[in-house]
Amino acid sequence: MTRDVPSSAWTSLGDYLRETQLLGSIQSTLYWDQNTRMPSGGAAWRGEQLALLARQLHARQSCERYAALIGEARQAWQASSEQTSEAERLAQARNLDLLEQELHRQQALDPDLVSAIAVAKSEGYECWQQAKAASAFDQFAPSLKRMVALRQEQARQLAEPRSCWETLAQPFEPDLTLARLQELFAPLRQRLPELLGQLQGGPRPTALSWDLEAATQQDLCDQLLKCWGRDESITCVAASPHPFSITLGPRDFRITTRVVAGQPLSCFLATAHEWGHSLYEQGLPPSSHQWFAWPLGQATSMAVHESQSLFWENRVARSQPFAEHWWPRFAAAGAPIANAIDLWRAMNPMAPGCNRVEADELSYGLHILIRTDLELALLEQGLEVEALPSEWNRRYGELLGVTPADDAEGCLQDVHWSEGLFGYFPSYLLGHLISAQISEAMETAIGAPEEHVRRDDLQPVLSWLREAVHPIGRALNAEQLVASVTGRPLSSEPFLRYLESKIERLLALS
Amino acid sequence: MTRDVPSSAWTSLGDYLRETQLLGSIQSTLYWDQNTRMPSGGAAWRGEQLALLARQLHARQSCERYAALIGEARQAWQASSEQTSEAERLAQARNLDLLEQELHRQQALDPDLVSAIAVAKSEGYECWQQAKAASAFDQFAPSLKRMVALRQEQARQLAEPRSCWETLAQPFEPDLTLARLQELFAPLRQRLPELLGQLQGGPRPTALSWDLEAATQQDLCDQLLKCWGRDESITCVAASPHPFSITLGPRDFRITTRVVAGQPLSCFLATAHEWGHSLYEQGLPPSSHQWFAWPLGQATSMAVHESQSLFWENRVARSQPFAEHWWPRFAAAGAPIANAIDLWRAMNPMAPGCNRVEADELSYGLHILIRTDLELALLEQGLEVEALPSEWNRRYGELLGVTPADDAEGCLQDVHWSEGLFGYFPSYLLGHLISAQISEAMETAIGAPEEHVRRDDLQPVLSWLREAVHPIGRALNAEQLVASVTGRPLSSEPFLRYLESKIERLLALS
Repeated sequence: MTRDVPSSAWTSLGDYLRETQLLGSIQSTLYWDQNTRMPSGGAAWRGEQLALLARQLHARQSCERYAALIGEARQAWQASSEQTSEAERLAQARNLDLLEQELHRQQALDPDLVSAIAVAKSEGYECWQQAKAASAFDQFAPSLKRMVALRQEQARQLAEPRSCWETLAQPFEPDLTLARLQELFAPLRQRLPELLGQLQGGPRPTALSWDLEAATQQDLCDQLLKCWGRDESITCVAASPHPFSITLGPRDFRITTRVVAGQPLSCFLATAHEWGHSLYEQGLPPSSHQWFAWPLGQATSMAVHESQSLFWENRVARSQPFAEHWWPRFAAAGAPIANAIDLWRAMNPMAPGCNRVEADELSYGLHILIRTDLELALLEQGLEVEALPSEWNRRYGELLGVTPADDAEGCLQDVHWSEGLFGYFPSYLLGHLISAQISEAMETAIGAPEEHVRRDDLQPVLSWLREAVHPIGRALNAEQLVASVTGRPLSSEPFLRYLESKIERLLALS
Repeated sequence: MTRDVPSSAWTSLGDYLRETQLLGSIQSTLYWDQNTRMPSGGAAWRGEQLALLARQLHARQSCERYAALIGEARQAWQASSEQTSEAERLAQARNLDLLEQELHRQQALDPDLVSAIAVAKSEGYECWQQAKAASAFDQFAPSLKRMVALRQEQARQLAEPRSCWETLAQPFEPDLTLARLQELFAPLRQRLPELLGQLQGGPRPTALSWDLEAATQQDLCDQLLKCWGRDESITCVAASPHPFSITLGPRDFRITTRVVAGQPLSCFLATAHEWGHSLYEQGLPPSSHQWFAWPLGQATSMAVHESQSLFWENRVARSQPFAEHWWPRFAAAGAPIANAIDLWRAMNPMAPGCNRVEADELSYGLHILIRTDLELALLEQGLEVEALPSEWNRRYGELLGVTPADDAEGCLQDVHWSEGLFGYFPSYLLGHLISAQISEAMETAIGAPEEHVRRDDLQPVLSWLREAVHPIGRALNAEQLVASVTGRPLSSEPFLRYLESKIERLLALS
């Protein structure tokens, strides 16, 4: 940061951003509590609290004073050309570009809409929980319909040169276009069903017929995080209906998991997954770093976030060498696991089901393609909300060969749409692509992740990620980050290569 | 509320108060999380979050706009004499009086001081936790010294015609004077040590030599709350280092407990206690009531609050008929309890110890007298913070005949001073007095609480409290409430009568 006179503009803007981040983290704390502790009766008031904070945040991020602070910082930047290095000037410019973009978006939105969306998110979440418990989509449909309308209105007010869905996807995948997404997904649309057919031709592993006590699962999760170096003084683990990771402060990282009856590995793999998210957040610029409260201190996209969670879940916890180290612990916990192959096979059922979160790496992509197509249809192609359950079930039958027993197992399974998070699901699949492509780069740099797992020393893996990926923040967008780390544009090939190799090895077991 | 033109001033003020309450409840949610979930590393950022909210709240409660809203409401009140009933006018006037009093207090405080106190509370709490864990008062002394100085400065800025301690006690006990407090405490200063001596002359019950698993204690607590009609959709129970009750929304009531090794009844009695607090909050005017966000919708004093928690802990859970119903449950849980007398005796050890929260009803008052004298000495009589441990231990030796093993068991045992809550402790003992006096009034009205416990039907007890005590809010201050409910001024006699009778019955067992 420059220390001459214009730098006071940078300091003022930085202080302002820090206070915005404080407010945002208060909002996150309310969200955390809502999902982990709050009694259901608290929902309406929590909705009012969140709406109040949303109004405050929107006001802070769209007001004249903030615009002036950014303007003054831009002027300071233009005046500081001789005092700062080129790299620093570029970083400053990137920060300003991102702040200006976000400011324009906030200014484009009617405060009443912002408030209405905050209330609808909170009420929608509560409504979804009840509708899911009752497996009654009808109960949820009015909420969802209202949320679709509010988000469509949001896209209209933003008036970007993008389609409605593209506009809504920007917060999750900055700069992503629908055309680029379809280009990346096209090989998957073709190849994933083929691979599924290949598996279904051969002998198929059956679903697990055993289970573990909740406390036993929790103990295995505790062991996992201990092995992976969890620092209890800055992390916290709780239970919630839907696992998530959230950061409440520069030294306050939280994850949640859940125990699913009949799915003894679900909690364990969810823990690995959410911990991967948390590691990315823990590796972002710390509060002592100059860009901590600036865009460059933030996660660059949900797909990159997901690539980090998927890395720890799939490349580490579902790997064969991991099973070699861990099968004795599962056996000791009472699981009918007699050797590494038993555990590896259990970790990789490669059997399509109705549930996205419990899905294996192969069928996962199909869950996402269905959601992507359906939210595009809801937002841009006039699909009626009422038709969602039947459209959902039809696609599951066609692509995965399964039929949800009810709406709870079908189109009510995910929380996202209840909070109006349209444009979010594709990030999960993009995360698979990015994780695979980054893993290939890691292999070139320090050896394959599986080899580090085999040596039971993940420190080099984490160190490499902490250098190559985590601290970049929003200095690069997702595709730029991938190109920078791997030397190639993002593509679906590394993911398909990885999948094919794994399926081949799994089939060879039989 | 009047519906004519001036009533818009009432509506505007009510809306404003509601938003203030939203912000306050957000602050409470952060406090709840800090005590039940937050990793220790989150403390500094949480302190900044709380300081930000404290600044916002202080600004809202001291700004010109708020003063104008109150002024307009006062004018509307003066103009509305013909449209409203006398009772309603009196309630409106009481609301305005209390709002004006609080406004003047807020306006008297420097915003920097408000912010500094918020930071010092958060840091002090964290520091106290660590110092207590290490039993090292030296680690905590600088925080405490700073907090004493900040609170003395607060009293100076408030500049009320009251002493420093009296000024700081006002938020907990509105209208209480030190002279009145000493008048109420004088009979206790004389009589409690005499009663203790009487007990020590006779055969003494020894401390419990058994314990129960944490999960078993939790199960008994769950049974208790179920018996007492807990509605899980509006209540939540968690663990924290120090038990407390807090309200996060009109339908979101939380309590915490803790398991203390070697004290198998501690968690159970703390649950009863905190539930009593929560019942009072649950009985305050609901969000549909016109006074919900107004002073008349709030708890009137900490002593009244404490009277409600002590009622359920002491008059119900520690009563002999309660032991008659509950001893089989404790026996089934593995406690060495063979009959009602065993449980009743275990619930009422009447053996002085070092710990306030675990104290019996007799020695509890002595714990409070010591704290009251010490905080008066710290704030008004120049006692050095460094001398606190030795002064503490000396008084415990003199009054209770016990010596804390270390500072953790001594002057570090309570959280209050770490957060600068001076003037709070006396409310606990006043709560005993109020509970006893209200219990006598209850006996006259519907029969003694113990008789309802014997019939295993507490509904009449709760209904009576919900009519006579809970909904009054701040319409009456603590002493007015007692006088109104019992027909007599508050006195220590009912409490001493109750204690003497109980001790006599306990001694008769031997």
